[in-house]
Amino acid sequence: MKAQIITIGDELLIGQTIDTNSAWIGAELSMAGFDIQRKTSIHDNRSDILKALSEAAGKADVIIITGGLGPTSDDITRQTLCEFFGTKLVLNREVLEMIEKMMLRRKIPMNENNRKQAEVPEACKVLKNRAGTAPGLWFEKDKSIFISMPGVPYEMKTIMADHVLPRLMKRFRSQAIIHKNIMTYGLPEARLAEMLKEFEAALPENIRLAYLPSFGVIKLRLTGTGKDREILKKQVEEHVRNLSSIIPDLIFSEKEDTFESVLGLLLLERKETMCTAESCTGGNIAHLITTIPGSSYYFKGSVVAYSNAVKEKLLGVDGKIIEEEGAVSEPVVRAMAEGARRLLNTDYALATSGIAGPEGGTDEKPVGTLWIAAASANGTYSEQYTYGGDRITNIMRFSNAAMNLLRKQIIKE
Amino acid sequence: MKAQIITIGDELLIGQTIDTNSAWIGAELSMAGFDIQRKTSIHDNRSDILKALSEAAGKADVIIITGGLGPTSDDITRQTLCEFFGTKLVLNREVLEMIEKMMLRRKIPMNENNRKQAEVPEACKVLKNRAGTAPGLWFEKDKSIFISMPGVPYEMKTIMADHVLPRLMKRFRSQAIIHKNIMTYGLPEARLAEMLKEFEAALPENIRLAYLPSFGVIKLRLTGTGKDREILKKQVEEHVRNLSSIIPDLIFSEKEDTFESVLGLLLLERKETMCTAESCTGGNIAHLITTIPGSSYYFKGSVVAYSNAVKEKLLGVDGKIIEEEGAVSEPVVRAMAEGARRLLNTDYALATSGIAGPEGGTDEKPVGTLWIAAASANGTYSEQYTYGGDRITNIMRFSNAAMNLLRKQIIKE
Repeated sequence: MKAQIITIGDELLIGQTIDTNSAWIGAELSMAGFDIQRKTSIHDNRSDILKALSEAAGKADVIIITGGLGPTSDDITRQTLCEFFGTKLVLNREVLEMIEKMMLRRKIPMNENNRKQAEVPEACKVLKNRAGTAPGLWFEKDKSIFISMPGVPYEMKTIMADHVLPRLMKRFRSQAIIHKNIMTYGLPEARLAEMLKEFEAALPENIRLAYLPSFGVIKLRLTGTGKDREILKKQVEEHVRNLSSIIPDLIFSEKEDTFESVLGLLLLERKETMCTAESCTGGNIAHLITTIPGSSYYFKGSVVAYSNAVKEKLLGVDGKIIEEEGAVSEPVVRAMAEGARRLLNTDYALATSGIAGPEGGTDEKPVGTLWIAAASANGTYSEQYTYGGDRITNIMRFSNAAMNLLRKQIIKE
Repeated sequence: MKAQIITIGDELLIGQTIDTNSAWIGAELSMAGFDIQRKTSIHDNRSDILKALSEAAGKADVIIITGGLGPTSDDITRQTLCEFFGTKLVLNREVLEMIEKMMLRRKIPMNENNRKQAEVPEACKVLKNRAGTAPGLWFEKDKSIFISMPGVPYEMKTIMADHVLPRLMKRFRSQAIIHKNIMTYGLPEARLAEMLKEFEAALPENIRLAYLPSFGVIKLRLTGTGKDREILKKQVEEHVRNLSSIIPDLIFSEKEDTFESVLGLLLLERKETMCTAESCTGGNIAHLITTIPGSSYYFKGSVVAYSNAVKEKLLGVDGKIIEEEGAVSEPVVRAMAEGARRLLNTDYALATSGIAGPEGGTDEKPVGTLWIAAASANGTYSEQYTYGGDRITNIMRFSNAAMNLLRKQIIKE
């Protein structure tokens, strides 16, 4: 079962819009057992659309197309689909009624452009769009199914869920594909690959391993394919167990993708609370933690102590220590964590002090130097790292290193 | 001048990674005057890579390839490029030295995988990678230039900026292209387009207007093409002046792209300081402001007061007011700003209190409700907004609304 995705729109090519649609469709089809052969983005342009359709026809079982179905003059997908499938546009009464009702509900008068959207290619099955005015279109030709949907993400997702996925599931009772993510932290990609060399070489043909690095975190993905989902599931699980036994200390999750979500679950489970005291990360850890819905149950707040005066006044760091050891030092970061924990009255406090760059580095403490500390009632742990990246990369890496320290401490206790 | 982008990686096809690289590359090449014909994402797979290279060869002047250059065995791009260009891998001493130095700096021992990354196709020009271990590779064949880079965004961007863009600009200098960005805030895209309808219709053929919305900010980009750069520059500037005269109050910058960089310049110029007191934005404003190099000159810190206890204890907000008016209210957000300004001893303080969702909304104060306040020695300004989006979108919009309030206040004073 093979699938291709074609996304249409100049805005995708010139980088004005990041193509999240194709990622979402890829994930859904992949979970449904399809092998996504290729994704192509092309111009809103008759000849480019015809070419992309011809290239995909007959090669994939399913070809998903998004974009160019809107009401404005630069949306030419419908007309071009008619040309490709040798058919013509006809007014669809049902679609017209749906559009009229929707415009009435939104209190917008109908115009010629809206009425035009009720014209659909005669040769296709119409997939109703509950979320907007342009319906989905389902064609079959040369053993391939072509499905055209609007590019507005919410409308596309609604049509996929209402019509496309159920129909495809029914049609293709598939080969099973199972993906399993194992989140690791602590080793760079090359070192990790060295440790997993034998494991990887011994994998059966139907299971593949991929490395996906992001700011110090490396996601390992095992992908298995097979006929029987249950048997495949057991097989993948066995290899996950093998993998885990090789690098038990590097794995921080087999479910959640990020430290902030792992920390959230750990704290919720334990009914404990945390706060942060951030210098070099400038509030980024607080920001990441509060991207998680419900974080207010365990996250009380943060003191972003960018200046030394704030470190002293709010967090109670001794000014003499800052002077003697420098703000980026072990005693200062420990005092920051302990001070924040007292001040914000939480079970845990996490502190960072480092040099994100590009300025501020010295021979002794170059850009990328990081001190982190995590404090609890049982004591304070601190660690030092040196990274090399630009300012934003450093801030992200610093944040991950710090959240991992806190994670280890929570688990230890 | 035509370009194509090929991104390699299973993770892109199955939707585990959203392909931001190709959007970034598309934007950069497009600004440099290239027409991006097509973007293709394919598997980490020899035959798919060969096929995609053949399809693009000879059709585009420049073909940019990312991904599959890592040190692990699933990274097979280099080997496949050798096959396509009829060449072989040879050890590059300079690259090896760079990798050795980098590993030494990071205190990580070299291994076989790292050494392998110094093996590059004999037929290519090597583009040094300051940001990582895999260099970029530049090939020429059939009138097309092929450039292969690692998929890690920071490394790809570094190689693009250091080598690829300057070399391409030198090679293809036919037509002058000038882009001019005008940053607006305060109206949604459809309303802004309505106000600029006549302006847009009257633009000459060689100048185009694009709308690039992002969390409430809309970047207007005027792109002019012409033979003579100086004449073109004057022509574009004239249209920028016309545009500015239509929407003077909506424009916040004609240079900087973000509120955080605009605030940075304003404060540096005035030698003034700021801090934030954040509830619903959870530290995101502090994070954004500290992404700017040198922000420590004007940013002193932040109190992220996620819990009401922190609002009371650190910021001195009266608990009775929180009880009577709710944490998301005008008196509370004003007290937060004034409290933070006193506590952190800055010229300005910016405060947020709102409901980012998905939980926590009521009929009276639905998800998306936001109160913001900016305090200075001359008084405190506050505003209320209601947005509708998911949690992350709301946090970003809230942050922009707040930073715009502070910007207006600084300018007023």
